[in-house]
Amino acid sequence: MKLLRLGPPGAETPAILGENGTAYALSDLTADIDGAFLASGIDRARAALAEGTLPVIETEGLRIGAPVARPGKVVCVGLNYRDHAEETGAAVPERPVVFMKDPSTVVGPYDQVLIPRGSVKTDWEVELAVVIGRQARYLASPADSIRHIAGFTISNDVSEREFQLEYSAQWDLGKSCETFNPMGPWLVTPDEVGDPQALGLRLAVNGETRQNGDTKNMIFEVAHLVWYLSQYMVLRPGDVINTGTPAGVALGLPGTPYLRDGDVVELSIDGLGTQRQSLSNA
Amino acid sequence: MKLLRLGPPGAETPAILGENGTAYALSDLTADIDGAFLASGIDRARAALAEGTLPVIETEGLRIGAPVARPGKVVCVGLNYRDHAEETGAAVPERPVVFMKDPSTVVGPYDQVLIPRGSVKTDWEVELAVVIGRQARYLASPADSIRHIAGFTISNDVSEREFQLEYSAQWDLGKSCETFNPMGPWLVTPDEVGDPQALGLRLAVNGETRQNGDTKNMIFEVAHLVWYLSQYMVLRPGDVINTGTPAGVALGLPGTPYLRDGDVVELSIDGLGTQRQSLSNA
Repeated sequence: MKLLRLGPPGAETPAILGENGTAYALSDLTADIDGAFLASGIDRARAALAEGTLPVIETEGLRIGAPVARPGKVVCVGLNYRDHAEETGAAVPERPVVFMKDPSTVVGPYDQVLIPRGSVKTDWEVELAVVIGRQARYLASPADSIRHIAGFTISNDVSEREFQLEYSAQWDLGKSCETFNPMGPWLVTPDEVGDPQALGLRLAVNGETRQNGDTKNMIFEVAHLVWYLSQYMVLRPGDVINTGTPAGVALGLPGTPYLRDGDVVELSIDGLGTQRQSLSNA
Repeated sequence: MKLLRLGPPGAETPAILGENGTAYALSDLTADIDGAFLASGIDRARAALAEGTLPVIETEGLRIGAPVARPGKVVCVGLNYRDHAEETGAAVPERPVVFMKDPSTVVGPYDQVLIPRGSVKTDWEVELAVVIGRQARYLASPADSIRHIAGFTISNDVSEREFQLEYSAQWDLGKSCETFNPMGPWLVTPDEVGDPQALGLRLAVNGETRQNGDTKNMIFEVAHLVWYLSQYMVLRPGDVINTGTPAGVALGLPGTPYLRDGDVVELSIDGLGTQRQSLSNA
C-alpha cells in the first residue's frame, strides 16, 4: 500500500494510491497522514480502498508533499554503508553513529532545495527512510522492529559539509538547513516493500549517476537500527529514521563536485519511486 | 508575564500567572501554549489578564507541565560556559557547538526523570532555555534576536555520558533518552526577565549545591546564539534553545557522582523559578 500527501505546502490532502496508479482521498478517514493516523489508521485506509468508495483525486499538476506530516523527530545514522565510510576516510563504526536533523527541514520529493547563504559544500545523500508506526521503547530484539514500522520512503539527507564537519565536531548544524530533507513520494508499507535489505538506491546529478548502492551493504540493518535506537530513545509514530547513504557523495568524489544553483538531483530506490529536486540559492 | 501549563501530561490547560501568584486559565484564548499561540497570542493574553475577566484555576495538587507544548525542535549549545568547557577537558570553542535533543524528551519541571536501562553515567545540566516566538531566518545581526524570543525558562539538559561520549563522536544519543528535558515551571517574557546575561543559575543534588553559575559567563550570549543559528537553520515559534551549562556536572566532579535511583535534583534560575525532579530507574 502506498500513502501520500497531495497539494500545497501545509495544506496537503491525505491520499492512497490504487493498483492502477489512481490516487484516492483519505480526507474522510483522517485530516492528515501523521503519527496519530499511522498508529491506528492504516488498516482502515486499506479497507476503504478495497471497498472502492474513496473519492478519486485529479493529480494533474498537483504537488506531492512529504508522505508524513510533522515528524516528531528525524534520527539519522551516519557512516552506515561500508563504501561510504571508506570514501569519507572514517573508520567503520562499532555502533551506529546517531545524530539528528531539524524535522522542519522535511519537504516534498519534487520541492526546490535551497543552497544556504555562504555555502560552498552542499552535498547529496540518497537514503532509505523508515517511518515509525507504533511506539518503540526498549524492544527486546531486532526481530520486534518490523511491527513498529509503518513503512518506508526515500530521504535526500542533504548536508552542508563545511557546517557539518568544520565548524564543530557535532554534525547537526550542517544537516538542519532549510529544505534539507526532501522525502517521498510515497510511504510504502512493509508488506509491499519486502526485504528492506535488498533494495537498490540510485542518485544522479544533472543526469550523471553519482550513487548506485544496495541496502544489502548496510553495516547496521533496519531491524538492528530500530531495536538499537529504542534502547536509548522512545521512537514514536511519525518519527523518521534516515538509515545512511552509500558511496558517491560529493565529499568523497574527485574534485568534490558540490551542488550549485541550477543543478538537478534525481533519486530512486527500488519499489519506493523517484524524487527530483532543483537547487537554488537561499 | 508568566505563562504556564497545568494538568496531567498531554491534557494541560494553558494558563497565565497574575502578580499575586494566582493562575488564570487561557482556555478561551487558545487550546494550548504552542508555537502558533506564541507567534500571535501573547499580547491577547496580556490584555485578557489586565481586563481581569479570566477564570481562576485552583492549583492545589495540580501538576505543572512544560510551558511549551510540542516544541518543533530542541537545539542545544555545548561547552558554552568557560568553566564547564574546562571541567570537561574540552577547548573553549571558536564557534557554538550545536547539537539536538529529541523534542519528545520535554517533560514538566517536577516530573520524574528516568535513568535509562543500563545507564551508569546519568548527569545533570542546569540551562537557560530560550523559546522562539517569531520565525528567525538569516537575521541581519544579534541585535535582531530579542524580537524573535517569546521568553525564557529553565531546562535540565539531562545527559547520559557513556551514550553521549563513548558510543560515537555524536552526542545526540546520550541527550535524547526518555524524560531527559524537564522544562519550566514558567515561560517568562523578555520584558520581565531583563538582561538574560545577568542571571544566576543553581543546581543541587540531594540538597548539595553542584552548580552555581551566572549567565554572564556564557561564551556565546543569547543574542549571538539566536542570530548564529538563524544563519544555518530556520528557528520557528515554539522551538527551544538550551544555551549551555556552567561548571559542576557529575562528569567534571571528583568521583563523578552520577545520578542514582532515588536522587533528587533541584534547579533554579533568577526570575525563572525552580524545578525539582526525583530520579527512578526506567
